[in-house]
Amino acid sequence: MEANIITIGDEILIGQVIDTNSAWIAQQLNAIGISVQSIESIEDSKNAIQDSVERLFKKNDLIICTGGLGPTLDDITKSALAEYFGMELLFHKSTYDRIEQLLAKFKRTPTKEHHQQSFMPDGARLFENQMGTAPGMWFQKDEKVLISLPGVPYEMKSLLEGGIFDSIKTTFKTTPIYYRTIMTAGEGESRIADKITTITSELPSNIKIAFLPSLATVRLRLSAKGENALELKNQIDQYVDKISDIIPELVYGYDDTPLEESVANLFNRNNLKLGLAESCTGGAIASRITGRSGASSYFKGGIVAYDNLIKENLLQVSSETLKKWGAVSEETVKEMVQGTLTNLGVDIALAVSGIAGPSGGTPEKPVGTIFFAVGDAKNIKTYKISITKDRLKNIEYASNFALNVIRKFLIAR
Amino acid sequence: MEANIITIGDEILIGQVIDTNSAWIAQQLNAIGISVQSIESIEDSKNAIQDSVERLFKKNDLIICTGGLGPTLDDITKSALAEYFGMELLFHKSTYDRIEQLLAKFKRTPTKEHHQQSFMPDGARLFENQMGTAPGMWFQKDEKVLISLPGVPYEMKSLLEGGIFDSIKTTFKTTPIYYRTIMTAGEGESRIADKITTITSELPSNIKIAFLPSLATVRLRLSAKGENALELKNQIDQYVDKISDIIPELVYGYDDTPLEESVANLFNRNNLKLGLAESCTGGAIASRITGRSGASSYFKGGIVAYDNLIKENLLQVSSETLKKWGAVSEETVKEMVQGTLTNLGVDIALAVSGIAGPSGGTPEKPVGTIFFAVGDAKNIKTYKISITKDRLKNIEYASNFALNVIRKFLIAR
Repeated sequence: MEANIITIGDEILIGQVIDTNSAWIAQQLNAIGISVQSIESIEDSKNAIQDSVERLFKKNDLIICTGGLGPTLDDITKSALAEYFGMELLFHKSTYDRIEQLLAKFKRTPTKEHHQQSFMPDGARLFENQMGTAPGMWFQKDEKVLISLPGVPYEMKSLLEGGIFDSIKTTFKTTPIYYRTIMTAGEGESRIADKITTITSELPSNIKIAFLPSLATVRLRLSAKGENALELKNQIDQYVDKISDIIPELVYGYDDTPLEESVANLFNRNNLKLGLAESCTGGAIASRITGRSGASSYFKGGIVAYDNLIKENLLQVSSETLKKWGAVSEETVKEMVQGTLTNLGVDIALAVSGIAGPSGGTPEKPVGTIFFAVGDAKNIKTYKISITKDRLKNIEYASNFALNVIRKFLIAR
Repeated sequence: MEANIITIGDEILIGQVIDTNSAWIAQQLNAIGISVQSIESIEDSKNAIQDSVERLFKKNDLIICTGGLGPTLDDITKSALAEYFGMELLFHKSTYDRIEQLLAKFKRTPTKEHHQQSFMPDGARLFENQMGTAPGMWFQKDEKVLISLPGVPYEMKSLLEGGIFDSIKTTFKTTPIYYRTIMTAGEGESRIADKITTITSELPSNIKIAFLPSLATVRLRLSAKGENALELKNQIDQYVDKISDIIPELVYGYDDTPLEESVANLFNRNNLKLGLAESCTGGAIASRITGRSGASSYFKGGIVAYDNLIKENLLQVSSETLKKWGAVSEETVKEMVQGTLTNLGVDIALAVSGIAGPSGGTPEKPVGTIFFAVGDAKNIKTYKISITKDRLKNIEYASNFALNVIRKFLIAR
């Protein structure tokens, strides 16, 4: 079965907001055997909404629609959909009461926008929004279903997970699709394709492989559609194993495991503690690590040593080293590792110092020159990379590279 | 003038990749007077590609298409487009030579995928890709133009900025659109709508206002279309001023100024230095601050004090305070500020400690309880918030909240 996603709102079309909702919805739909045929972002106008719905209903029976349900004046989704489905908008007291209660918690009373927001299409099934004011709406006409949800991501997610996905599963019959992803770091897309060509050239026609390169990582996604879920799973798992056997040193996980999870597992398994000293990444690596629940089991903390005085005072990098070799040097990151091991009382430390750009480059050390050191009390390994991306990409690339060298250090230890 | 954007690739439809390209392209097109009518993500299949192109060309003359041009087997965009425009694919030696040169820098040689990637539609105008292997392609048939670009964001950007936008401007005539955005923090969407209702109710019909809520911030976007660019600008600027005058304490900037830029400007103007002590945000605030070029002018560094021992040893939070009040308390964040002022030698320090979740909550301090302190040598202000979002949202909310209280502290100082 296939479905379509529509995202409504001028803010996406002028590029002010990135549509993250659709990716999440697509993942969830795929997991219940519904593939997404298209994702469309359209303007907040009656014609655009009704035209898309009309056209997409000719192809598929399910549309999930986000956005355009807020309390303010710019949202016209609800009336456009009510008109399309031939429903009237009526004042819905229990929605208004819920808004009133919700606001009372913050010692506030409903505004006239909230009153207007409480008009609901007569005939749509409503799903109560636990995280906000606009309920989810389930429109149905014969076998065609359109689900309209608020655009605020956590409201949309809580509505779908809180009952709408269950209703979709009971309303539609679905065909299994099976996906697996091999997560790699350390080589580029073409090089990996070349290494595993013996496997990819023999893939059966129902299995597709996609190479998804990102900053310092490449994901290999295998997918298969078919009637027998167990058979598909076995078939794909077998190719995943074959590919992994050819490039074991590059594989850090499967199925969207982030690098930080792979690192967390290695630390927890070895009962070790990590500390960081970040200069050019400015806290980005610590932030990646602590973004995952449970990070406190192995991560003690870090020092964002942006200023050289912080490198000297809190990490005991010697002023001679800074003067002779500069803050962006192999010698400095080595001393940063030593300072982190001592001052933070950790088993393993990683340090990074580089020129993120766009300014600060020199002929010998252009923007994108970044040094890394990772080590324990016995042994410190260093790396230098030269990349040529913009500031934020350099930081993200360096963060991925750092997590991967921590992973490699733990494996080799 | 209107254009459409197509994004090709199964990775978006299964939700593995978030489409960030389209938002950026839409921003740039709007800036040159081209509004985006729709953004469509479609599958990597000949039919899907050709159908969308056919349908969208009936509405508008310009399509920008990203994705599906990599060196690996899953990409069929190029042949689908060549067929649609009636062009043959021919081996393009100078593309192959460029790939060869590019790889030589990394001491590598082209693979057979690179050879295949060097076949180009005979008749398309090619734009050399400075950041990767796949060139940009300009297909034209009478007044209809389709521009096909690689999906890797920095390659796509460098191609558009490196000449394609200029070609678009010379090929098409454009109508001015004028946007301004008021950036606010400190109140919710409905409350702001209520406060400025005297202004929004009198807006002329060619001006639209949209409320775009995010975590701890709300953007108010005013837009107008019309023939006279200068007149539109004056008209919108006047309403932006009127609204700002009603809620001056909430406005931290205009036109997508991030909070960290507003903070950076205040520090630079006052020639002050900032230091951070982060517990639950784990480096996220430092990372936001250092993500902006020039942060070193006011940001000296930070301590990610994830473990209590780091709070004691590097920030001199007393073990009595930690024992009596806990790490998540007003007293602890106050001492963290004092420790940061002393140890980092900064003028202003911010500290944050809280329970990001999903675990770690208690009846008295549930998940989402977060304490902040901001201060200088004379004065420390504290805040407590209770939010109920997921871990990453709590961290993002707390980061925005922190940046806003730093801003308020500097203004009040």
